[in-house]
Amino acid sequence: MAIAPENPSALIRVAHMLADAVRPITLQHFRQSGLTAENKHSTGFDPVTIADRDAERVMRDILAAERPSDGILGEEFDDITGTSGLTWVLDPIDGTRGFISGTPTWGVLIAVSDENGPLFGLIDQPYIGERFVGGFDLAEVVGPQGTAHLRTAAPRTLAEATVLTTFPEVGTAAEMHAFQAVSGKARLTRYGMDCYGYALVATGQVDLVIEAGLNPYDIHAPIAVVQAAGGIVTDWTGGPAHRGGRAIAAANPQIHAEALALVQSVINA
Amino acid sequence: MAIAPENPSALIRVAHMLADAVRPITLQHFRQSGLTAENKHSTGFDPVTIADRDAERVMRDILAAERPSDGILGEEFDDITGTSGLTWVLDPIDGTRGFISGTPTWGVLIAVSDENGPLFGLIDQPYIGERFVGGFDLAEVVGPQGTAHLRTAAPRTLAEATVLTTFPEVGTAAEMHAFQAVSGKARLTRYGMDCYGYALVATGQVDLVIEAGLNPYDIHAPIAVVQAAGGIVTDWTGGPAHRGGRAIAAANPQIHAEALALVQSVINA
Repeated sequence: MAIAPENPSALIRVAHMLADAVRPITLQHFRQSGLTAENKHSTGFDPVTIADRDAERVMRDILAAERPSDGILGEEFDDITGTSGLTWVLDPIDGTRGFISGTPTWGVLIAVSDENGPLFGLIDQPYIGERFVGGFDLAEVVGPQGTAHLRTAAPRTLAEATVLTTFPEVGTAAEMHAFQAVSGKARLTRYGMDCYGYALVATGQVDLVIEAGLNPYDIHAPIAVVQAAGGIVTDWTGGPAHRGGRAIAAANPQIHAEALALVQSVINA
Repeated sequence: MAIAPENPSALIRVAHMLADAVRPITLQHFRQSGLTAENKHSTGFDPVTIADRDAERVMRDILAAERPSDGILGEEFDDITGTSGLTWVLDPIDGTRGFISGTPTWGVLIAVSDENGPLFGLIDQPYIGERFVGGFDLAEVVGPQGTAHLRTAAPRTLAEATVLTTFPEVGTAAEMHAFQAVSGKARLTRYGMDCYGYALVATGQVDLVIEAGLNPYDIHAPIAVVQAAGGIVTDWTGGPAHRGGRAIAAANPQIHAEALALVQSVINA
């Protein structure tokens, strides 16, 4: 059963505290030459930078002081099981490949979740100075143009829609074909946006983000932001997405249903 | 024969004046709902927004007053042939598909060129507030982190390199295969950066941008910025790229040669 946090504003305050602390750490390393990128797995390319680790360590230190009974699920270090029923889900640099390429599409993902998924989350882009937040009745972006309310796009057909994913290969061959079943009918397909794509669904600019191979810490904060803005995020069966794997983030239930049916026509074929 | 401009600082001043005038126009329309996108050609998707036209009109008005004897080559309106030997090459919003998707990867491209190509150019990203300039002994970026010198990456092998293009399909099937001959040997391939990719070559973050189907106004400013930062930009034969078509922008002659050979192994096969 979900534990209703007695004080949402305390959680919101801590989430911003974490994001504020991480900004200078990530920016200290962004676009610096000589950035090291280790190959974390023997297969595939998953660079982990010094910035990534330093940023998560700072966030964990703050949480140890501010929220000692909450759990922590982060990319870089071991999980901490809390006693409060709340877990902080942290990805210090989502989009490390974008980060080491100098693109402004990576982000810091911070969510506070219970066992049913995220209650509140934020996507922070330190270089642009832009923060998208969602949850506890908040749905807003604070950035170079000031503060704006987040609202996903109104329903339009897939033939009029824009769909994003980060890599054209998406995941397995079947996952790629499932994505292509949607993108082949969309007006416009774009790549390379990392977590920033979910923020663009929340701003109403993009109708769909479809990805696979996600870790839980990749998707908790995006779920919170997209849902707070009026969108819907599920896995490719239509069930909860917060455990990671395959996700569809949609601007509204109509385009979600259209995309889900196409994805399933491939995956279940 | 090239006409050496007697006063580079006057040209630099006007280039910034144009970019400054365009920022509020583009930002007025960026991420607004209801942005119209016309289909300029019967084949393919090439949206032209109100912002695109308004921005170019404002730049042409400024040039009529400030540089009446220079020519103008722009995306949205007819060419103007000047008498000075100098031509302003303008793309008010390069990356209109990125623009209508809300991504911060589109840019305003402004170059001043003679018949041999660009003398000075800038890539401006109004939302981030970031401007990359190159030419007349300048190579710098002014952005959210202040001012920094631009310097392309030192030579490294393609196996260690990052390569960008905007669309996975690149252009024709042959052009796509030529790109894949390079990207298949690269450490990392990323998509979706529009003109921002050339700026990332200039910052030293990315080793190669390879594109096809370019118009002259897409590439003049990127050539100026990349070359000023120490890079090299050619077409796929190794010749000048400023007439548009196919381009390779490289951080240094070594990686340029490696990429050019691979591209030609497909295109000339």
